[in-house]
Amino acid sequence: MSETTETVPGRAVGPAASLELWFRVLRLYTDYTELLDEKRLTEWLGLFEDDCRYTAISRENADAGLPLAMMRCEGVPGLADRVNAIENVSVYAPRTMRHLFSGLRAHHTAEPDLLSVEGSFIVAQSLSEEHTEVYASGRYRDLVRDDGATLRFAEKTAVYDGALVKNAMVYPL
Amino acid sequence: MSETTETVPGRAVGPAASLELWFRVLRLYTDYTELLDEKRLTEWLGLFEDDCRYTAISRENADAGLPLAMMRCEGVPGLADRVNAIENVSVYAPRTMRHLFSGLRAHHTAEPDLLSVEGSFIVAQSLSEEHTEVYASGRYRDLVRDDGATLRFAEKTAVYDGALVKNAMVYPL
Amino acid sequence: MSETTETVPGRAVGPAASLELWFRVLRLYTDYTELLDEKRLTEWLGLFEDDCRYTAISRENADAGLPLAMMRCEGVPGLADRVNAIENVSVYAPRTMRHLFSGLRAHHTAEPDLLSVEGSFIVAQSLSEEHTEVYASGRYRDLVRDDGATLRFAEKTAVYDGALVKNAMVYPL
Repeated sequence: MSETTETVPGRAVGPAASLELWFRVLRLYTDYTELLDEKRLTEWLGLFEDDCRYTAISRENADAGLPLAMMRCEGVPGLADRVNAIENVSVYAPRTMRHLFSGLRAHHTAEPDLLSVEGSFIVAQSLSEEHTEVYASGRYRDLVRDDGATLRFAEKTAVYDGALVKNAMVYPL
Repeated sequence: MSETTETVPGRAVGPAASLELWFRVLRLYTDYTELLDEKRLTEWLGLFEDDCRYTAISRENADAGLPLAMMRCEGVPGLADRVNAIENVSVYAPRTMRHLFSGLRAHHTAEPDLLSVEGSFIVAQSLSEEHTEVYASGRYRDLVRDDGATLRFAEKTAVYDGALVKNAMVYPL
Repeated sequence: MSETTETVPGRAVGPAASLELWFRVLRLYTDYTELLDEKRLTEWLGLFEDDCRYTAISRENADAGLPLAMMRCEGVPGLADRVNAIENVSVYAPRTMRHLFSGLRAHHTAEPDLLSVEGSFIVAQSLSEEHTEVYASGRYRDLVRDDGATLRFAEKTAVYDGALVKNAMVYPL
């Protein structure tokens, strides 16, 4: 992070403009979680750049610098494949995922149109007729492109804290 | 939603004014969750319009268009009856509910003083001397009246994701 | 609270300035949860005043006015002792805590540079190779000093809702 300039809402934060930027970032994560949980997956794909990278990786592997990830998708086509799998795999018990997040912060990077964004998440899982339970917690470590009008994910990395062995992970974090 | 104009914090969001509106909505949900969890229920009733409708319904029934709801109250008198039941039913083991929410968004509807508001919630339950556990997750699909000074719930619909069979639901979501 | 003037984001909230203040408070809690969960504990200590008081107390004891608290630290030296214990106690199974919060509100108190801040939290715990589970939920009831540039905790009180018997509490809430 030594090359970045912290803007929102960090410890060396500037004037009111940063509140506006934070609010734009908030919108992106509001869209991300809502479209994902409501299974509006085609619209959800629109939040990513064409050549984005999506990674879900355990904290242990991330901290150790190991590349082994639970889920890795290259570009919107890769993510779209995953979306199609979600929508068409009938052996997968129907469930609802619910994402909550807090503590979003954004930094400008050395690239003027690229933001480094972090935030914490928790995901609850509800299988049909069963209790709701915690599925995962973790932290987003993302790169977000700002073309002046729209924010989109250039890289989305969801670092989850525990083990995800309850069932094969199909949904993105 | 085709009749609504998206304002905050959606994908076609306007200028700074929308941040102000979002902040007013945030206050309402801050009040709603705090007053409910702290059992300040008389003040909590003041967040609803006199002829409000409160509904807690499972996602399965909501998605299927089934009217069967776990809890349905008509107007503040109906909600007040529920509040009295909560405060006076001694057979009900004491517990603390804790609501967290994120991803609030608001749209203007065709009625100029009426907002459509959505957001995600998770509720943790703690029985006396017992561990805290997830009670429910879900999504608010609400209508909020703006009289220019104050926001109040015209309709509050809490769509919960899983089964709520741990004990009879007494507290609102 | 009768001596306080409610400013953000409560029911008698004033003009735009309060949004700015709320955003400054949001930054403080963003820092608090991020630095704690990422185990950047020396930086985390910098969020407290030198003579701060940190308390983690059960809701039962807090409501009853009982002084018995699970954790009580006097001043940054006391907190630093705790931090050293966390970093050096090798018998303690490694784990990741993840804090989420929502519903922050701030009031001015009778002291012009002192804010009363409340908000709700939930903490998820992940032991190595194990599932993520709810560790605690509760409410912050804090006093925050504003020196005009920086907000720091003068008193931090985390009131947790349930029992914390899963293992000895080492991490602050």
